This record gives sequence, C-alpha cells and structure tokens, in this order.
Amino acid sequence: MGFKGDYMRNLSLSKVYQLLEPGPVVILTTAAKGRANVMAMSWHMMVEFTPPLVACIVSNADYSFAALCSTKECSIAIPSHELARKVVGIGNCSGQEVDKFKKFGLTPVSARQVTAPLIAECFANLECKVVNTRLVNEYNLFVLEVVKAWIDPAQKNPKTIHHRGYGEFIVDGKRIKLQSRMP
Amino acid sequence: MGFKGDYMRNLSLSKVYQLLEPGPVVILTTAAKGRANVMAMSWHMMVEFTPPLVACIVSNADYSFAALCSTKECSIAIPSHELARKVVGIGNCSGQEVDKFKKFGLTPVSARQVTAPLIAECFANLECKVVNTRLVNEYNLFVLEVVKAWIDPAQKNPKTIHHRGYGEFIVDGKRIKLQSRMP
Repeated sequence: MGFKGDYMRNLSLSKVYQLLEPGPVVILTTAAKGRANVMAMSWHMMVEFTPPLVACIVSNADYSFAALCSTKECSIAIPSHELARKVVGIGNCSGQEVDKFKKFGLTPVSARQVTAPLIAECFANLECKVVNTRLVNEYNLFVLEVVKAWIDPAQKNPKTIHHRGYGEFIVDGKRIKLQSRMP
Repeated sequence: MGFKGDYMRNLSLSKVYQLLEPGPVVILTTAAKGRANVMAMSWHMMVEFTPPLVACIVSNADYSFAALCSTKECSIAIPSHELARKVVGIGNCSGQEVDKFKKFGLTPVSARQVTAPLIAECFANLECKVVNTRLVNEYNLFVLEVVKAWIDPAQKNPKTIHHRGYGEFIVDGKRIKLQSRMP
C-alpha cells in the first residue's frame, strides 16, 4: 500500500463535478473478501452537485459487479492520458483471473471512508458509497455518493482520455473560457 | 423548418454510443404545446448499446423538464466546438422567456419519430423516447431510448466540447488508437 500523504491532497466535494462532467474514462476500484480489483469505466454521469452524486453502469458481466453489490462501496480514480495503455489493458482482462493492481503496476492507497483502494498514479480519486440501487436489476445502474475526494497536486493540468469505442480515445485538447452564468 | 435531406444521413443505432460515450456537451430539444425549446446538457451517459439507452439529468428547475415529462420525447443534438458560444448562450437564458431557436440562429428540422425538432447545425442528432421515469422524482434522472439517429456527412471529424464548469470547456484534441477487445 502506498502512503496517501505522498500523492494526495483533500479536494472540496463541491468541485467533484468539474472532474467528471467532461466525461473522462475512469477506473473503478472495489474490494471484497480481501481482494481489490479495478475496471475501466466510461458510462458515468453527474447526478447532483453537492453532495456529489454520480450514476454509473457496471455490467453484471463484470467481476466488479458482485463486489459493488455486496460492499456498497467503491472508489473512482481518474487517470491522465499517460495511463491510456494501462486503462486499455485493465479493460481487456478480468479480475477473476488476475490481480490487476499487480499486473499493471498500479499502487493501491488506503482510502479514508471506504475499503476500496485509491490509485496513487491517478491524478484524482473519489471515495464513493452506493446510495441507490433501484435501477440495478433493470439497467445495472448504480447511484453513488462521493464522500471524500483527493487530488494529486503534483500532476499539473492533467489531460484526460475519452473513449470512442474499440480502443480509440480522444485526448483533451485546448481549453476555452466563455462568459457563463452556469456552474 | 430546414429539410432533413440537406443535412443528415441515417446513422446505425449500434454506433450511437460512440458519439455519447466520450461525454460531449449536447443540446436537448423538446417541443410542447407547439413550442420548441433547447437546453445545454452535460449530465448524460450511455446505459445500453443496442437499442441505445441513455440516462440524463434534466432539472425540474429547467423549462425543458415539463415538456419532457408531458411528451415523453426529446432529441439530443451534438454540437461541434464551433457552436460553443451558442451553447453557452443557450445555457444562460430560459425558454420560458425567449425562443432560443430564433435567438441563437438554430435551424429546426423535423424529426422522423418524435415531435422534438433536430438541429441542422449540429453534426449528429438523436431522436429519443423516455422509457423509464422511476428516478425522476428523486434525482430528475430520465432513461431515454434512441429510436433514430442522424449524422451530417458534411462535417468531417467534428471536435466536441466538454464542460469543466463556469464556461470553461475542453475541446477534443488528438486521437489515439490502442489495441482493445472492448467495444
């Protein structure tokens, strides 16, 4: 386990939506029966600003599904584009067969409020609890509440990746700023 | 009303997720009582590949909410970055007060299967029906089925925008392609 203080600083929960609203590929971590696992995830969205609520789809064909259902906890780690190859690798194998933290050289870090580990190499990490499962049976749709958020101040202006299917990703390009009254 | 044949070609429903999974800002159109309206939307995600299901949050504070609830129909139009200023303008005023199609010079185009219009200037348009409202009361969360999809073949490699809050957007940057077994 890595030591959190080496990588992460507290991030205000009111800023969490700014990380997820742009739609980056994220890594979902879970831990059940003493075993941590990761999966790549693109099907997520913000549901509420504060406390931050996030909806996501975790297929019941994914190994992470059972852990999420049983523990009602997970973490969402956001990788920058330098980790794109690892993200694809994570998506191409199952936690049922391999220890993906070990296989992809990811450093687990203990979370504060959930058992699912954070990932040291990711620039942001969100500790989450499942708060609504009403659409799990029909759509594998979970609603999560982010209860703690971390940011790595050493990673300046990280560029995220956005999946277009079949291993094709768009990397963040230029930023534009327009006058807006919207949060 | 614009003529669809001038702008749009049929897009296979199986490819819809490739447009929404990267998390672009989209424009939601609705029509109720003979009046069409648009809103900017970033809180959406894919729920299923085929038929394509999409979840989205439309606040009950938005003028579009009532139209979506009463008609159970909408269209999702995807703008390229050239339309960023219009998207921000759309987000900064209410359809209760202004005709946003007129104000922002958007050309409505009749959809095939829903009354909510398409937008000629957007490179992709998705006709949607509301298929699940169980989380509307609690979270303003609608599940939509995309029943018809259109693409503008004249817009080559459109770059989308991703909202980071307060009028700051990331424009699509470079594309990378990695070996992947995932769709």
